[in-house]
Amino acid sequence: MTTPTNDRLSPAQARGRFRGGLRTPTSGWVPGAAQANVLALPRGMAFDMLLFAQRNPKACPVLGVLEAGQLDSELLAGGDIRTDVPAYRVYRDGALVAEPDDVVEHWREDLVTFLLGCSFTFETPLRRAGIPLRHQQLGVNVPMFRTTRRCAPAGTLSGPLVVSMRPIPADRVADAVRISSRFPGVHGAPVHVGDPAALGIGDLAAPDFGDAVDVPDGWLPVFWACGVTPQAAVMESRPELAISHAPGHMLITDLPEAKLQVP
Amino acid sequence: MTTPTNDRLSPAQARGRFRGGLRTPTSGWVPGAAQANVLALPRGMAFDMLLFAQRNPKACPVLGVLEAGQLDSELLAGGDIRTDVPAYRVYRDGALVAEPDDVVEHWREDLVTFLLGCSFTFETPLRRAGIPLRHQQLGVNVPMFRTTRRCAPAGTLSGPLVVSMRPIPADRVADAVRISSRFPGVHGAPVHVGDPAALGIGDLAAPDFGDAVDVPDGWLPVFWACGVTPQAAVMESRPELAISHAPGHMLITDLPEAKLQVP
Repeated sequence: MTTPTNDRLSPAQARGRFRGGLRTPTSGWVPGAAQANVLALPRGMAFDMLLFAQRNPKACPVLGVLEAGQLDSELLAGGDIRTDVPAYRVYRDGALVAEPDDVVEHWREDLVTFLLGCSFTFETPLRRAGIPLRHQQLGVNVPMFRTTRRCAPAGTLSGPLVVSMRPIPADRVADAVRISSRFPGVHGAPVHVGDPAALGIGDLAAPDFGDAVDVPDGWLPVFWACGVTPQAAVMESRPELAISHAPGHMLITDLPEAKLQVP
Repeated sequence: MTTPTNDRLSPAQARGRFRGGLRTPTSGWVPGAAQANVLALPRGMAFDMLLFAQRNPKACPVLGVLEAGQLDSELLAGGDIRTDVPAYRVYRDGALVAEPDDVVEHWREDLVTFLLGCSFTFETPLRRAGIPLRHQQLGVNVPMFRTTRRCAPAGTLSGPLVVSMRPIPADRVADAVRISSRFPGVHGAPVHVGDPAALGIGDLAAPDFGDAVDVPDGWLPVFWACGVTPQAAVMESRPELAISHAPGHMLITDLPEAKLQVP
């Protein structure tokens, strides 16, 4: 999925490609630019969503909020949140009703849009440290799973924690933890290392979102909190309308990854 | 202000003293327990306040939110947010109208309460490292100042950044930065070191909140973002009702300081 040219694009150029209709997972795109999950909800639910994020900061680290009527911000300067993501999902009453390339016709003036950090952001420093990323090696989307861990509820919103999984060679797990923990704004340290059953995941070959990847001998499955978590809450809590990115098809922001690094 | 006994109290015991009517600044109280700023606003303003906090995380780090009708939480187990703070402020249409010991008679069912980290929390690790705290030496409240720096606005809320000031010996400034930066949940690293004029502060002897302290020869004034910032936004943005702690008179929570330390 990484083409020879897309790591030389600016964030705005990448958004332009997606606005033009390109539909692809964004892992590996525009190294150094923070990537974001997108969730737009009617204004009446905005407090519940922001409170859900505050109570579940590993799954929902807020990078920015577009208020009702606002279509861009310093995170997507000159962009349009309705068109600049490679693929969207539209939920009505909690049911997925469309997966379009843009959401201009679904948009409403009262939608408040939450931009939540995505773990694709720390894949760049992981790769720089020589840690292999299996889904990139295979050219597929990262696998994501619903877990049996419940999020802290907030108002009308409740649901399970969703995680992304990356197999990591056993001798690099410590490095993967150390490096990702420096990026709390894009999910930070893993929530679990090893046995998927402890998270209630029965079969790593059957992810709930994205594509399956194998776990090579001598590697461990490592699980990070995932920004699809609020989509799972939407499916459970059934707001009249919700619009999100399609899993793995992220907003590429103007925020440099380096600005998210602590300490 | 620190008595021989109050550093042996549990957070719940300290809250009990304040519920019983004791009125005192809380710097130095219950070492190891996180202290919190309090701001309660009508539910209709709750999203604006949470968004204001998200956009101004150094001034408004959210430790917890009590939803409408909720009077305690795991941050003040068995407590009552209307009585357990040493002193409160009541604002109507942005004007300070009362500074009572409890706010039972002012309370409304639709108030949402925000608990924001307070820098008194990292005073304990500063002191443990041998860094002198002038306001504790003098037995007074910490001095706080409005600055000419503006916060990022959110909906109806806007206002200036408010800072607390601690003079620090020049050879310990680096340590004070290093240690406080490990506690982003209670304001983290300073926003400014040195010349107060750069923040628009004319006279260190005339704080806007709290008490003046001198800056001894060879010490520098060091400024941290302060949780009184949303009170300044309330004064400017004039919601019909707002209830807060009185500056320096904080909620002592059950959250251990150690849980706030990163990395």
